[in-house]
Amino acid sequence: MQNYHPVTPQIIESLIKLLGRENVISGTEKLCDYSHDEYAQDDICHYPDLVVRPADARQISLIMKLATEHKIPVTPRGGGTGLCGGCVPTLGGIVLSLERLKKIIEIDKENLMVTAEAGVTLAELYKAVEAEGLYFPPHPGDEGAMVGGVIATNAGGARAVKYGVIRNFIRGMEVVLPDGEIIEIGGKLIKSSTGYSLLHLIIGSEGTLGIVTKATISLVPPPAAIYTLIAPFANLNDAIGAVPKILTGKVIPMAVEFIDREAMRVTEQFLDKRWPSDFGQAHLMIILDGSSEDEALALAQKVAGICLENGSGEIIFADAVDKQRTILELRSKSLDSLRKNMLEILDITIPRARIADFVRTTEQLAVEMETWLPTYGHAADGNVHTHIMKARWKNGVWTEIPGWREKYPVLMKKIHALGKSFGGVISGEHGIGITKKPYMEDFLGKRQIALMKSIKNVFDPQSILNPGKIFSEPD
Amino acid sequence: MQNYHPVTPQIIESLIKLLGRENVISGTEKLCDYSHDEYAQDDICHYPDLVVRPADARQISLIMKLATEHKIPVTPRGGGTGLCGGCVPTLGGIVLSLERLKKIIEIDKENLMVTAEAGVTLAELYKAVEAEGLYFPPHPGDEGAMVGGVIATNAGGARAVKYGVIRNFIRGMEVVLPDGEIIEIGGKLIKSSTGYSLLHLIIGSEGTLGIVTKATISLVPPPAAIYTLIAPFANLNDAIGAVPKILTGKVIPMAVEFIDREAMRVTEQFLDKRWPSDFGQAHLMIILDGSSEDEALALAQKVAGICLENGSGEIIFADAVDKQRTILELRSKSLDSLRKNMLEILDITIPRARIADFVRTTEQLAVEMETWLPTYGHAADGNVHTHIMKARWKNGVWTEIPGWREKYPVLMKKIHALGKSFGGVISGEHGIGITKKPYMEDFLGKRQIALMKSIKNVFDPQSILNPGKIFSEPD
Repeated sequence: MQNYHPVTPQIIESLIKLLGRENVISGTEKLCDYSHDEYAQDDICHYPDLVVRPADARQISLIMKLATEHKIPVTPRGGGTGLCGGCVPTLGGIVLSLERLKKIIEIDKENLMVTAEAGVTLAELYKAVEAEGLYFPPHPGDEGAMVGGVIATNAGGARAVKYGVIRNFIRGMEVVLPDGEIIEIGGKLIKSSTGYSLLHLIIGSEGTLGIVTKATISLVPPPAAIYTLIAPFANLNDAIGAVPKILTGKVIPMAVEFIDREAMRVTEQFLDKRWPSDFGQAHLMIILDGSSEDEALALAQKVAGICLENGSGEIIFADAVDKQRTILELRSKSLDSLRKNMLEILDITIPRARIADFVRTTEQLAVEMETWLPTYGHAADGNVHTHIMKARWKNGVWTEIPGWREKYPVLMKKIHALGKSFGGVISGEHGIGITKKPYMEDFLGKRQIALMKSIKNVFDPQSILNPGKIFSEPD
Repeated sequence: MQNYHPVTPQIIESLIKLLGRENVISGTEKLCDYSHDEYAQDDICHYPDLVVRPADARQISLIMKLATEHKIPVTPRGGGTGLCGGCVPTLGGIVLSLERLKKIIEIDKENLMVTAEAGVTLAELYKAVEAEGLYFPPHPGDEGAMVGGVIATNAGGARAVKYGVIRNFIRGMEVVLPDGEIIEIGGKLIKSSTGYSLLHLIIGSEGTLGIVTKATISLVPPPAAIYTLIAPFANLNDAIGAVPKILTGKVIPMAVEFIDREAMRVTEQFLDKRWPSDFGQAHLMIILDGSSEDEALALAQKVAGICLENGSGEIIFADAVDKQRTILELRSKSLDSLRKNMLEILDITIPRARIADFVRTTEQLAVEMETWLPTYGHAADGNVHTHIMKARWKNGVWTEIPGWREKYPVLMKKIHALGKSFGGVISGEHGIGITKKPYMEDFLGKRQIALMKSIKNVFDPQSILNPGKIFSEPD
């Protein structure tokens, strides 16, 4: 265990001098905003001693030099939209918010790349990029997430099937290392085999190896046409069974989501909007893009045919933008509609062909343990979001699940063990943060954890940068 | 500098006992085959003391334990098709050939994945996968390359524009660490955010961190139709100028290669085959795939239109398989046709929109220094293969370039400096090996090299695994 030092009044004075008084926050009330992320339970909240809001990499470098000198923990923070406590300052010290690094530095239409600072939100990024006639395919659910944060977690989202996750789009980075040195990795480059990929090592490292302050990100030409299909199936087995048929049917959709029709009723009530089909228990939401209207339509018809052959009920075609938006909104807000009565959203990722088996087994577990485990996720990615609940929804009414407190740790253990037995990993897109730490060794084994800890030690020998995340600290 | 120990007769006996006499090679003549790769110059050749040909990860683990105990350098070797000496046993010791790990363990049609051992060649992989109605998009030039080798270099090739490089397809690995421990990383998984990506760290690490013995690799459904277009332009500037227009024209081709018409004459003579167009100095070879014949044709017509608008001469459409094969063969054999009179092929990668400027500058350099620098490469990737020659080809005749020996190091320095000034990296797909080591610090700076060396030290504290590659060893 590291012995960290306190944030002294002298250090606060130095930071005020560096950043201006308005960018050094120490009042208890304001600190609350920086004490948590979107994880559902309050008990992981932890107040920092101080929040700093630097303007650029140079200021961040000076903060890290100060933190290194005085051995103070620093927790970087983006949009705070994480789901496992990755930006919570567990050990106190300084929260370093990237919220002021908001510049979109360049949209390079010749190279099809955007260079943006870490504090740019996804919503801002989509808007700026689309205004220039380009397209950024990944769509992690919450558009309030920031560039730095989606890199830190290697975020995914629904649109990862055809185009891939955040990792596939990051080409260059400016990174402030724990000791304050600023390095530039990669650039406007599509390929590189120039030594170990520090780029890919830092992507997904949850802000524990360095602070990403700027990124150069690949874009693609926008699809000429996008269709959304809803294919309703009698049960999940049939729905998931259709997915490999779609993929081997020479179609790679942008997204294939599976939806629990029952859980969707919660979201319908929450948003007061209607999901377009009532048939069956499990639906596939399939997004298809094409290089022309004709191609998108042909793909949609092909996919519809495959779904019908595999037992789908009447398929809903959404081509109008507003209809597609309503469907996407209902899917995106599913988490919000469950959150208030939720303990945790899991993020286990297994081989995609095994989703139906996995979900069926968790459903049996729910019956056995008299609980409710509403589940949706990314069918073509194998990324299953099982929700552990403290209340059950039925016909518009929430009822507390008896013994949910005692059932919670048992369910966490059992469902993760199940994920492991299916050849899965703990997280497909949310990261490990604080809440998934207990399962790391079981999934990865002692040696992989030891390698990761030693890599952490290479970058951050004092363990001051986002300590207490991913795995327990070096002894 | 590490002090390695010699391979003693006792060690040889242990290895013979473990692997069988036929799999421990020590005769000088046979060692020659394991002393070099496809790098053009003989002076990097180095004989190992011994070659071992293990059958599986378990045997490799035991070899590494022996090597660790006795501190003997071990250099893993795949197909030996590398271009910068990555598999050359610079410091002697043992060459560990993966040539017997030839099993294609499984083609999983539900999950669209193949699991193959490290010694499977690309040719074998394509054949097996296509027989099952699936498709592996990456196509590094030499099909004799092995799975382990293309992972070690993060190989690319022409078909990386739409589908990406090897990195994008590797999902799981079995790796033998330098001390002999076997770890399993990832699996049949499309997404993972479960701790630092050891997977992506090992991809492209040129066999210096661990020996990849098995990999699980993503596949895609085969395109319904593929077209190859040749668009001939008056000069390179016009040719490269058309590339961003194609990409922003809502088309993402599988491949966009630029070809120096003059250099192609060498390959025509070498193969006694004809390139299909004689117009102009610089050609684009564009491969387009579609989800249907109609779509591929529509894309081809669109791209042809864009090329014509941007000054292309008459465009050659190749839809017949044999015609496409001839074109691809001529492109793939360009290196072979130059090799005998070549000193080195460079692999600098720059922002793709700047290729024309880069090549124009190297052409000026060639004029100034009275040499010939034939150049082709991957236009949509920014990956430029400049060839440094000892002879010049003109009208079917090779003439030695006066002073090529003295010009060679000057050209290496100047062209790499140019690559750096364009925001590039040393290697897009070949790796660093031995021959590109001198340029690493200049491109990446001291700190990035120091981080990489420390990571090497985490995995391989005795520096026994492929020592002397990528960067000089830890002091």
